[in-house]
Amino acid sequence: MLSKNTVKFIKSLHQKKYRIESGKFFVEGEKSVLEVLNSDFSVELLLVTDFFEKKHARLLQPFRGELIQVTQNQLEQLGQYQSNDSALAVVKMKENNSFEPENEELIIALDDVRDPGNLGTIIRVADWYGIKKLVFSPQTAEFYNPKVIQATMGSFTRVQFFYEDLGPLIQRWNLPVYGAFLDGENIHHMKKPKCGVLVMGNEAKGISPEIEKKVTQKVTIPGYGNAESLNVAIATAILCDNFKRLMGT
Amino acid sequence: MLSKNTVKFIKSLHQKKYRIESGKFFVEGEKSVLEVLNSDFSVELLLVTDFFEKKHARLLQPFRGELIQVTQNQLEQLGQYQSNDSALAVVKMKENNSFEPENEELIIALDDVRDPGNLGTIIRVADWYGIKKLVFSPQTAEFYNPKVIQATMGSFTRVQFFYEDLGPLIQRWNLPVYGAFLDGENIHHMKKPKCGVLVMGNEAKGISPEIEKKVTQKVTIPGYGNAESLNVAIATAILCDNFKRLMGT
Repeated sequence: MLSKNTVKFIKSLHQKKYRIESGKFFVEGEKSVLEVLNSDFSVELLLVTDFFEKKHARLLQPFRGELIQVTQNQLEQLGQYQSNDSALAVVKMKENNSFEPENEELIIALDDVRDPGNLGTIIRVADWYGIKKLVFSPQTAEFYNPKVIQATMGSFTRVQFFYEDLGPLIQRWNLPVYGAFLDGENIHHMKKPKCGVLVMGNEAKGISPEIEKKVTQKVTIPGYGNAESLNVAIATAILCDNFKRLMGT
Repeated sequence: MLSKNTVKFIKSLHQKKYRIESGKFFVEGEKSVLEVLNSDFSVELLLVTDFFEKKHARLLQPFRGELIQVTQNQLEQLGQYQSNDSALAVVKMKENNSFEPENEELIIALDDVRDPGNLGTIIRVADWYGIKKLVFSPQTAEFYNPKVIQATMGSFTRVQFFYEDLGPLIQRWNLPVYGAFLDGENIHHMKKPKCGVLVMGNEAKGISPEIEKKVTQKVTIPGYGNAESLNVAIATAILCDNFKRLMGT
């Protein structure tokens, strides 16, 4: 039975303030809920329709959190999806634990990417290309924003990330740092890149001057027409595709 | 002076029904309005702030449509931008005129791409890669939707397009047809592609069975991680980047 307090609590999670306060966020839709149940995230509360509960009975059996049966209509009132006939999960945030780079890997660093849709799409792209680690400047969009979670299409469960001032971090890591600029090396003709950090900048301002100083190789996506720029998620995807092609991994 | 009727008319253009009925759409923000003024679109009405009018006085001099001075607040009431201190233009739609393929060019065909943001981003990507022609299935999102126009970042002024049933059209054109599938040729290792048509499918269903039959070469974007798929605009960008790299144009 869905209580008024639970309704109020889940609705509060649409706001960053209450997500931070409670340390929780929500995930909705069949695919994403299944992915979060299969991940190392801790699901505390699961709202399921009769349809979802029957379809995934075996998967739900070991679930030890609170399970409440709801209607499709109730789900749609609670979440942001216009249509959701499956489930909504309330999940515990992870702590902002840093990681260290390991050999032979590319790390994506986001320097103030503000749009939640862009952040989510970049996480999905990273997961596609097998890039497991991302670091975000403090002003980058919030990972647990429902729009970010939605845009990742489940990929949020498969990446490691933390928020930190990028300048000192990149300095300390002392790795090759790639950044996209208009006057960089054409990525179609560049030689095999080394592992390191790929920095992507803010939607309007690009990479900040402080971080630009730390970029060891500027790279450029060749344009053939008249568009002035590419969306940051699109540019990230094209760069990852070229890096993976050149690195042959 | 902004009349009540003008306000009502511009607000009606948020809805497809009234756009179709009037044959008009709107464009907002400094960059996009400047681009449309410099294009072969016919601007009928221009709402400008004092700031925009002074900054672009020379450009506005030859303008023969109706010009109304408004406040930033009025612009924000009329358009979809949260912040707009510049201008909003009411523009005449172009007719749905078909074109024929010419030598040495790649044409993008969209088979039911429904999301306006995706359509707009694809148009921006096409413009970046110098792809001037696009064809859309009748169920593809409407070109003149304000969200499409916004996502193109002005690139909507530089492409040719029309809506038509793709099956018969592609049949008639009789060109190489590329389509993205999971079991196609790895685009990192493919040899130089010929000019032709690149088909991109619906967000959920991909390329329809009817169009799949007409695809002469299936291509695949190699994945290295666990994401099941890529967003259609992302996939379009990666394919265009690889095609241009391989074609060397």
